[in-house]
Amino acid sequence: MKKIVIAPDSFKESLTALEVANAIETGFKRIFPHVEYIKLPMADGGEGTVQSLIDATQGKRIECTVTAPLGEPIKSFFGLSGDGKTAIIEMAAASGLHLVDPTLRNPCKTTSYGTGELIKKALDLGVSHIILGIGGSATNDGGVGMLQALGIRFLDAHQQDIGFGGSQLSKITHIDTTHLDPRLAQTQIEVACDVNNPLCGEKGASAIFGPQKGATPDMIKSLDAALAHFATIAQHDCGIDIATPAGTGAAGGMGGGLLLLPNVQLKAGVQIVIDNLRLAEYIKEADLVITGEGRMDAQSILGKTPIGVARTANQLNKPIIAIVGCLHEDYEVVYQHGIHAVFPIIHQLGDLSDILRQGEQNLISTAQNVAKLIQLSMAKKH
Amino acid sequence: MKKIVIAPDSFKESLTALEVANAIETGFKRIFPHVEYIKLPMADGGEGTVQSLIDATQGKRIECTVTAPLGEPIKSFFGLSGDGKTAIIEMAAASGLHLVDPTLRNPCKTTSYGTGELIKKALDLGVSHIILGIGGSATNDGGVGMLQALGIRFLDAHQQDIGFGGSQLSKITHIDTTHLDPRLAQTQIEVACDVNNPLCGEKGASAIFGPQKGATPDMIKSLDAALAHFATIAQHDCGIDIATPAGTGAAGGMGGGLLLLPNVQLKAGVQIVIDNLRLAEYIKEADLVITGEGRMDAQSILGKTPIGVARTANQLNKPIIAIVGCLHEDYEVVYQHGIHAVFPIIHQLGDLSDILRQGEQNLISTAQNVAKLIQLSMAKKH
Repeated sequence: MKKIVIAPDSFKESLTALEVANAIETGFKRIFPHVEYIKLPMADGGEGTVQSLIDATQGKRIECTVTAPLGEPIKSFFGLSGDGKTAIIEMAAASGLHLVDPTLRNPCKTTSYGTGELIKKALDLGVSHIILGIGGSATNDGGVGMLQALGIRFLDAHQQDIGFGGSQLSKITHIDTTHLDPRLAQTQIEVACDVNNPLCGEKGASAIFGPQKGATPDMIKSLDAALAHFATIAQHDCGIDIATPAGTGAAGGMGGGLLLLPNVQLKAGVQIVIDNLRLAEYIKEADLVITGEGRMDAQSILGKTPIGVARTANQLNKPIIAIVGCLHEDYEVVYQHGIHAVFPIIHQLGDLSDILRQGEQNLISTAQNVAKLIQLSMAKKH
Repeated sequence: MKKIVIAPDSFKESLTALEVANAIETGFKRIFPHVEYIKLPMADGGEGTVQSLIDATQGKRIECTVTAPLGEPIKSFFGLSGDGKTAIIEMAAASGLHLVDPTLRNPCKTTSYGTGELIKKALDLGVSHIILGIGGSATNDGGVGMLQALGIRFLDAHQQDIGFGGSQLSKITHIDTTHLDPRLAQTQIEVACDVNNPLCGEKGASAIFGPQKGATPDMIKSLDAALAHFATIAQHDCGIDIATPAGTGAAGGMGGGLLLLPNVQLKAGVQIVIDNLRLAEYIKEADLVITGEGRMDAQSILGKTPIGVARTANQLNKPIIAIVGCLHEDYEVVYQHGIHAVFPIIHQLGDLSDILRQGEQNLISTAQNVAKLIQLSMAKKH
């Protein structure tokens, strides 16, 4: 045993992915002090992705003020990789549902403008590559707010710019991309998108994701029509189909709107992280891969980090185990998706708060026991 | 990997030792279907010992009626080994504290007579060997009641038999062993005794164990004096020191009184079980030993099953791991006592009742993951 890759997600509410990786390393080092450990804090494009990629690249967090979903200024942030070439942006940090008081949630009014401002600030820092996570948004504006922030004009019948919010889209008569930020032509944007929904219709953004953002049945109907109208104009004025491709309905149609920018790719979130951290290159050299997440269950096979890591390990024919915060009884399906063995870290019953507090210690202890068992088993062959 | 010994204790309130062994086997067989599994349900001489030895020897449970601590008849039981040669008796089944209503607990009055009756019934079945667990008693009578049931007479100044209870011992003027059951001369009795207390004094039976049996400070004084008096007469009439050896203070002086019988040995409970199940012979042939218990903590090193099994495995230089119900944070001391690695089975938080109900499933799942990790690690060497 010479090299071990430790590539876990965060344990939500308890430990960041880097902290998880450090704890696993600590436990393993007690048994295998001379092994080389490669720690790659992972994420799946959702919550924690910015922190994991900052940690993985020794990058930093950039704070700035942008426009919140209902138009007021708000403190936001994004991540900048250690080499300064990549920005990691979470749409939720500027346009997230959690930023809107539950009584005020209304996707007819909320805008994705702040996300566009984050992209602009990243361009100001000179990045040539943006990773954009689009989960958790408060908006249903087809990404129009974001596009406005980047210079595209959406004009109504009076040649006036439309306002903020999903219902404004029905007013669009012309899309003018003349003033689109020219730096985007040299910028690759990878969008972490784990849903396949189209822009409109019964599987579309408004019908599927509208209700959780505060849309009533009537609002859903008009928002859906507004997105469809936007798609028609986009096809006509820009020659781009923003309604049909899988994922265009993600984040209130943000997935569709983004297609009006050059060099945009919608990809599975975990795959973006895997590619950017060059996970396969490290795994190729490893004797063992260890992944993990806070809770493993049947949902874990739907684009979560451990299965993505497992797929890479399987392709390279490497053993992969997971150490997890807890394990739901339906977890066994992960075996069919490439995870070889799973070890939950809970040592004894207790309050959730106690368990979360003991997380690091239990993780170290579990890692040590796993390492010891590996050592014992390898010795059987000597 | 050809042979695995599975030698766990029970998981209290959830699974018997045999059920634990079966679940571990089930999980392992999913990965190693062709290995030979030797299942030895273990115990430490305390609760569960009768069941484990019945299960380990394909024996049976014998029901009978005996005298309860306060003199009334009570349904009791003991175990008979598959070959019919060994009885496994728990003192608590006849003379246990749990058999006395808390408001009536009084070690001046409680007798160990019922335990003597169980021994007599075992002799009636033709056993030549008795394993006697003496934990959890309600008595402080120096085992005098037990000895009375087996034919020894304790006479007062009027040559009358004394009555039941610890306070009667002060009346003894003569011990007459003429009528002791003669079958005991051909019967080996192994007493599972995990305390070192002497019969009398400040570390003696009355002072240390009296309070939990209902003794007041005044009662402790008079009970202690009564036991000392009994010891004086025993030394005088039988030439046997029942007061000084370690363990004579166990179970209200039962440890001492038993020394008046021929062929009695006080031993650590787990060692009795280990010897009787010929654990070492099986481990000698094994590639791996798996033990376990319901809860592993720093107390586990004090005569509990896994450490006894670990000692045997260590002597034979075999790898030994534990799979446990839960793991207290102070458990790590078990590493110094020979356990190589430990895996708790809790998969997620829940009510205690849910967790106990899921015990078997979680145990199978944990065993499977442990087995898989072993398989992966062994493959590294091919």
